[in-house]
Amino acid sequence: MKSGSTFLLAARQCEIADLEELARTGELVGAIGRFVHALQNERGLSNLFLGSQGRRFAEERRRQVPESVRAEAQVRALLEGLDTDSVQARNGARLFSRVAVVLHALDGLPGLRERIADQAASAGDAMAAFSKLLAGLLAVVFEAADSASDPEVSRALVALFNFMQGKEFAGQERALGASLFASGTIDLAGQQQWRHLIDAQQGCFQVFADFSDPEVLRADQASRDPVVIAEVERLRRIGGAGRPGALDSDLSTEWHAWSSRRMDAMRGVEEVLSAHLRHLCETRIAQARTELRDQRALLEALAREAPYPGADGKAPLGPQLERSVLALVQEQSRRLQAMGDELDAVRASLTERKLVERAKGLLMAHRQMSEDEAYKALRQMAMNQNRRLVDVAEAVLSLADVLPGGSR
Amino acid sequence: MKSGSTFLLAARQCEIADLEELARTGELVGAIGRFVHALQNERGLSNLFLGSQGRRFAEERRRQVPESVRAEAQVRALLEGLDTDSVQARNGARLFSRVAVVLHALDGLPGLRERIADQAASAGDAMAAFSKLLAGLLAVVFEAADSASDPEVSRALVALFNFMQGKEFAGQERALGASLFASGTIDLAGQQQWRHLIDAQQGCFQVFADFSDPEVLRADQASRDPVVIAEVERLRRIGGAGRPGALDSDLSTEWHAWSSRRMDAMRGVEEVLSAHLRHLCETRIAQARTELRDQRALLEALAREAPYPGADGKAPLGPQLERSVLALVQEQSRRLQAMGDELDAVRASLTERKLVERAKGLLMAHRQMSEDEAYKALRQMAMNQNRRLVDVAEAVLSLADVLPGGSR
Repeated sequence: MKSGSTFLLAARQCEIADLEELARTGELVGAIGRFVHALQNERGLSNLFLGSQGRRFAEERRRQVPESVRAEAQVRALLEGLDTDSVQARNGARLFSRVAVVLHALDGLPGLRERIADQAASAGDAMAAFSKLLAGLLAVVFEAADSASDPEVSRALVALFNFMQGKEFAGQERALGASLFASGTIDLAGQQQWRHLIDAQQGCFQVFADFSDPEVLRADQASRDPVVIAEVERLRRIGGAGRPGALDSDLSTEWHAWSSRRMDAMRGVEEVLSAHLRHLCETRIAQARTELRDQRALLEALAREAPYPGADGKAPLGPQLERSVLALVQEQSRRLQAMGDELDAVRASLTERKLVERAKGLLMAHRQMSEDEAYKALRQMAMNQNRRLVDVAEAVLSLADVLPGGSR
Repeated sequence: MKSGSTFLLAARQCEIADLEELARTGELVGAIGRFVHALQNERGLSNLFLGSQGRRFAEERRRQVPESVRAEAQVRALLEGLDTDSVQARNGARLFSRVAVVLHALDGLPGLRERIADQAASAGDAMAAFSKLLAGLLAVVFEAADSASDPEVSRALVALFNFMQGKEFAGQERALGASLFASGTIDLAGQQQWRHLIDAQQGCFQVFADFSDPEVLRADQASRDPVVIAEVERLRRIGGAGRPGALDSDLSTEWHAWSSRRMDAMRGVEEVLSAHLRHLCETRIAQARTELRDQRALLEALAREAPYPGADGKAPLGPQLERSVLALVQEQSRRLQAMGDELDAVRASLTERKLVERAKGLLMAHRQMSEDEAYKALRQMAMNQNRRLVDVAEAVLSLADVLPGGSR
């Protein structure tokens, strides 16, 4: 018959299995980071190439494509290794469904590249297609952070997700700035959009800082080359913060070069974050394995010391030993509960994004908007009212009950 | 190579596996409900037997024991069937660790019964031992509710958990009232404690009502025999709400009989709740299976309609078909996200209990209190300040940062 000790050890083994699954997910997230960086570069170069009617950046774009393809192959290889037949994966349903969206979008990538090479796609359409794919990849990272069962690992994943999301806003800023400079003019709406992207980055990097280890924060500090920062800020001031009107279109290349250097530096920080995550998983797994071994040894020792088998064939423990086992099961139960509480607290930081997603869904359902239109509508409201995106999302959701057909 | 469709179907299969695991957990929760009821009766009868120095309820208690043993065997049989080797169970670590605590406590039950039969245990000690075991069993139900991956099933489990917890407070009220009547006197502290147990029941039954289906609520209404309610209220008024002082000790048996009838009626509602939960799991599993079949058929039809295999051997889909698959993966992703949001909202209702548990843990760590003492201290603060238990718990937790060695 299964005893309390059986379940005590089984609980510990579940913890180890969860951590091992997290380590695999962490590896996937690392590969996604590399792929995202390559795609961000390809998006930026495609944008410049199409914006210049194919006169510039043709060679750079052509050279970037195989890099993206290589990074994609690495992500696909890890996805291939995911056990889609074992249907017991923690949060498998949501993670797999995010992966399905990404794989579907990837099927369209070769066609998109052909249209870009033939200049048969507009810069705007190409931007939108790349950005959608990138959003899908980030959603996979988000699911991973939201489903982690270990608070420490979850903190590291939340930090990584927010860093990646902040970097993606930086990538969008790079593309926006490049096309605005290239167009030779900027209006109030363009400036608003630029400011929005800067604020969005700051929001993400703040969460990243809140959830990061000192070691990671030091790497982040070290990555910030003051010359790069100063140049980016100078060009931001010229483009985004000046009076609306004419811009020196020659600055487009300069802006692209400096903001690319900034993004490459961010990619370096991402590597440190990924390595930290990997190390954390390994440490936690080793620790849990040691604890399992110790616990098993202790339980066996206690069973040996039990004075005699009872009438039912079981070896009853003396009161002293019974208290030792009791302390063990209670301690483990309390520890797991404390971990669960901490996990809830970490996951709460992901609420903002969920609110925005929910508000988007509401607009899509009630106003027959596409996902893109819904996001733009929210962002426009935020800019017009000078409020944060999440506050606007909350306001929209609070109207849900009075909208016709509003779901509970 | 695994395609988006592979992951789309794998996500659906994960959902089905999660639901099947939930159905098994639901079965365990049902058996726990029956065992809890038997133990509550045994606790009440043991209390009366010991309180009367063995003069009364000896036969009733003796007859109750085999009923408890039978119900325990059913719970153990289901635990035996739990796959402790498959370490991939969702939330396995916490559920298994709660089960370990229960099984350990059950090992002490035969000894406790012997001491009660020999009148070698005090009524207070016996009460405490039974109540601890019951708290452990309810903690298993709580974990099940907290780990459910389907919002509808989670709602049903939250309703069931709160009903069971409310019924347990009613069981404690039955025991408290019986011993106060039997003692022939009541003081202010006894009255306070009585009121606290009534308030705690109301809190639980309110959450139960908030999360229950109309069908379950009708069963609950129908179970309330007006005569029983009136008698319980009359005796509550005499005992708990009157002026402190002498009580008619003959009322002890009467109180026990009426509050037992009330608890038996609650047990009936619990059965309806359990049946509802079982039905819900079956419906959701059948529904998910149908959807999986439809989805698979649709994807196969789309693949057949694809005009010709491309250069890479893959059958590229026409733009029309591609949009159909895209709609499918996006719809599934959105649906799972909406389910996740709803799940978060349901789980939020479990926060109160977690706050109380955390405050208890804090007192245990900083004041070297036992779990029992910590709970009593919180309850005493709540009664003294006339505040809800959860508010006191929050106040205690907000002090955590200023306590020496307070954990983050």
